[in-house]
Amino acid sequence: MKKQYLDDSLALHTDLYQINMAETYWEDNVHERKAVFELFFRKLPFGNGYAVFAGLERVIDFLQNFHFSESDINYLRDDCGYKEDFLDYLKTVRFTGTVRSMKEGEIVFGNEPLIRIEAPLVEAQLIETAILNIVNYQTLIATKAARIKHVLGDATAMEFGTRRAQEMDAAIWGTRAAIIGGFDATSNVRAGKMFNIPIAGTHAHSMIQAYRDEYTAFHKYARRHKDCVFLVDTYNTLKSGVPNAIKVANELGDKINFKGVRLDSGDLAFLSKKVRKMLDEAGYPNTKIVASNDLDESTIMNLKQQGAQIDIWGIGTKLITAYDQPALGAVYKLVSIEDENETMLDTIKISGNPEKVTTPGLKRVYRIINRYTKKSEGDYITLEHEDPQNEEVLHMFHPVHTFISKYVRHFDAVDLHEIIFKDGKFVYELPSLQKIRSYTESQLHLLWDEYKRTLHPEEYPVDLSEACYQNKIDNIKLVKEKVETFIQEHSD
Amino acid sequence: MKKQYLDDSLALHTDLYQINMAETYWEDNVHERKAVFELFFRKLPFGNGYAVFAGLERVIDFLQNFHFSESDINYLRDDCGYKEDFLDYLKTVRFTGTVRSMKEGEIVFGNEPLIRIEAPLVEAQLIETAILNIVNYQTLIATKAARIKHVLGDATAMEFGTRRAQEMDAAIWGTRAAIIGGFDATSNVRAGKMFNIPIAGTHAHSMIQAYRDEYTAFHKYARRHKDCVFLVDTYNTLKSGVPNAIKVANELGDKINFKGVRLDSGDLAFLSKKVRKMLDEAGYPNTKIVASNDLDESTIMNLKQQGAQIDIWGIGTKLITAYDQPALGAVYKLVSIEDENETMLDTIKISGNPEKVTTPGLKRVYRIINRYTKKSEGDYITLEHEDPQNEEVLHMFHPVHTFISKYVRHFDAVDLHEIIFKDGKFVYELPSLQKIRSYTESQLHLLWDEYKRTLHPEEYPVDLSEACYQNKIDNIKLVKEKVETFIQEHSD
Repeated sequence: MKKQYLDDSLALHTDLYQINMAETYWEDNVHERKAVFELFFRKLPFGNGYAVFAGLERVIDFLQNFHFSESDINYLRDDCGYKEDFLDYLKTVRFTGTVRSMKEGEIVFGNEPLIRIEAPLVEAQLIETAILNIVNYQTLIATKAARIKHVLGDATAMEFGTRRAQEMDAAIWGTRAAIIGGFDATSNVRAGKMFNIPIAGTHAHSMIQAYRDEYTAFHKYARRHKDCVFLVDTYNTLKSGVPNAIKVANELGDKINFKGVRLDSGDLAFLSKKVRKMLDEAGYPNTKIVASNDLDESTIMNLKQQGAQIDIWGIGTKLITAYDQPALGAVYKLVSIEDENETMLDTIKISGNPEKVTTPGLKRVYRIINRYTKKSEGDYITLEHEDPQNEEVLHMFHPVHTFISKYVRHFDAVDLHEIIFKDGKFVYELPSLQKIRSYTESQLHLLWDEYKRTLHPEEYPVDLSEACYQNKIDNIKLVKEKVETFIQEHSD
Repeated sequence: MKKQYLDDSLALHTDLYQINMAETYWEDNVHERKAVFELFFRKLPFGNGYAVFAGLERVIDFLQNFHFSESDINYLRDDCGYKEDFLDYLKTVRFTGTVRSMKEGEIVFGNEPLIRIEAPLVEAQLIETAILNIVNYQTLIATKAARIKHVLGDATAMEFGTRRAQEMDAAIWGTRAAIIGGFDATSNVRAGKMFNIPIAGTHAHSMIQAYRDEYTAFHKYARRHKDCVFLVDTYNTLKSGVPNAIKVANELGDKINFKGVRLDSGDLAFLSKKVRKMLDEAGYPNTKIVASNDLDESTIMNLKQQGAQIDIWGIGTKLITAYDQPALGAVYKLVSIEDENETMLDTIKISGNPEKVTTPGLKRVYRIINRYTKKSEGDYITLEHEDPQNEEVLHMFHPVHTFISKYVRHFDAVDLHEIIFKDGKFVYELPSLQKIRSYTESQLHLLWDEYKRTLHPEEYPVDLSEACYQNKIDNIKLVKEKVETFIQEHSD
């Protein structure tokens, strides 16, 4: 590693083609044309019925600090061969656009613009890769955490995944995302420091090994730490670990709070029930049982079904890597661009796969809340100028299978986007992490339970307004005609 | 995020229990007892026959800079309640241990000590979590890359995964690991800058959309960039994309190098064959076909079987997230510790699962190379003092199913560990990334093909010496007797 790069700016945290496109636009003097990109994913992860949007705070930080540093410019010149005129321009690039975004912690769905960037073409392009990198991961983990929390109910959920995370940023930002999704604490001290998250942890097997027996190790630990959670599975949970923990607790009495024992291996259902009985019989009904060991929503559901007596759950690998689906496929697509006459023209990307055809034009997303049930009827995507609140009856129809439709009255249409940057100026107030977490919880209450079950949830409606749908059809037609004309002209 | 933490030291990138154990050891004045920990994984990832060790360079950097910063100490005091006496001690902690490690790029297997740390107990404990975090991810990705490269043969492999990586560090360090595993280039410019990796990329669909037609977009791109790879699937690959690319190439002639076209969607087998024919017929037999779109070793093998005409492969999500197994389960276990009489005592962790019982004692790993075939006979783990080269005949036997065994003569026993730190002093010379990559390639030649196939490879022998095996059996017996005594004493 070249250690001298202390001015690493993150502007190079991008795919090379972004810089080549930037150069093309700049050379052609179209780089400052206003472009609108939208960030969205198509398919919900884990077969879940919703996702939890996360990553905005880091995106904001990235945009606020966006610039090419001196060593970036030198690298682009000396190692990549870019020419001085273009580099002189790159040095001046900052983010000057307007950003609308879902709030962090928002409950979101496929094909909704999560972030909308209106900016000079070159800027909007240069920030794409980093923003996707951030939002894809953090949204994935917040969603996974919410799934796990859904199964846990009111039980305490702790993030224990650092050692298995995909490098350091994932450990840190994944932990933050887990809190947004409903987790209560983490073992990662740095995440605790950076984000003011409660931290938890007592000791490992190695401490028992270092003292060569559990009794001594527990005693030594208790000398300094009043709150004790003893790890009891180093040698034999029922015959050695728990009896030693109880023995030490009996001897020390009020000098410690015998808060819990932790199980990290073996048959957690069987062991936890036995351990609960041993603790109760020894007079420690308030001593909690903490369990960890490759847990996820499905093993947790299974353990609960078996009557496992677990109060606090430590979730590691399966959460922090989103083990069963370790990537979210969010994309960033151009939906509108200024032409040479300063007119905005909508753009589309065609695909043989109907789900992959993009929806052109600047859009808004409204959550349609039924005034009587206080539950959501679905999300409604409109073109920029529309206001669904003006309608008395809203016609909501499926954007692919249009015959699936309903008419909704007596609704509140809640605009889900916040303005984050206005012409490069940061105009948003960042909520605290605890506020974001509460927001997620409250937004989940707007959803009927059928959308929230972890297996085969109902499909939540994400519909296009009539105008938005028609605009898409018109654009498809336009492109098809253009391609057809080209084929005719070249069919010699 | 608390922005004021500019002195973030990574020492807090650890599980809280490490700090609580450190405090226990310090309070008990056993914190400076010499301890030996070994880092290893049990099971090879992806059902592969070997793994590629990576992460050492970052581990070294972490150890060299290990210290608690002022804001770390303040956090531990003000937010976590640690007391001043312990914090005063923590301020002084640096890494003063001795480290032996596999070289980066080494071919490694389950249950081999990849890194061996001999250090004062407190130091060895405090560095555990971060080291695991680093090695688990980087080794996973280097291994995945080697699997993919194995299927690709001499074709060019490019890392394209940044937007789907699990946050920024994964994109950067995963790319580096991919190069170690045999990849040729990356799209991530920052990784290129940090690690001197070749970078690649031309333009995206959005450039076509911005210019609203392929012909114009390709022309504009070519104005500034002599080397052209045109993305041809924005509207219709065969009817519009490729014909437009050829048209532009014909018009510009020698002004550009028409290096390639890129396919990013659709039926890659069908399209690549058609496109190859179109390019050849148009007089561009040297124009390459680049393909990407959710590729991994299995889709690549399938495409090749179908006769796909792809020269350069862009691999994203499936590589950078190790999609089919996104975590490696490396652990870090105490194998020996000094007692109150300054005698080193070996330690063991027992488990109901035979594979999970640790192997006590300080160990070395030798690769046993047959002098005639020049191929490896397997790896041989010994206790510290043994030298297998002294044996004329080596008895190699399976560490669990001991009846599986063989006698080996005429061998070279190659010590796989390098000394990295000696009593805290860095004594190793870091090889360049290209050297590491070549080393991996050369080491793979030592393995018979049967260990390298991607499906159901043969199990490579990783055996214990007689002495090492006996030491393990003795330690198991010792612990069992101790637990039995405890049960007897408490069976009232």
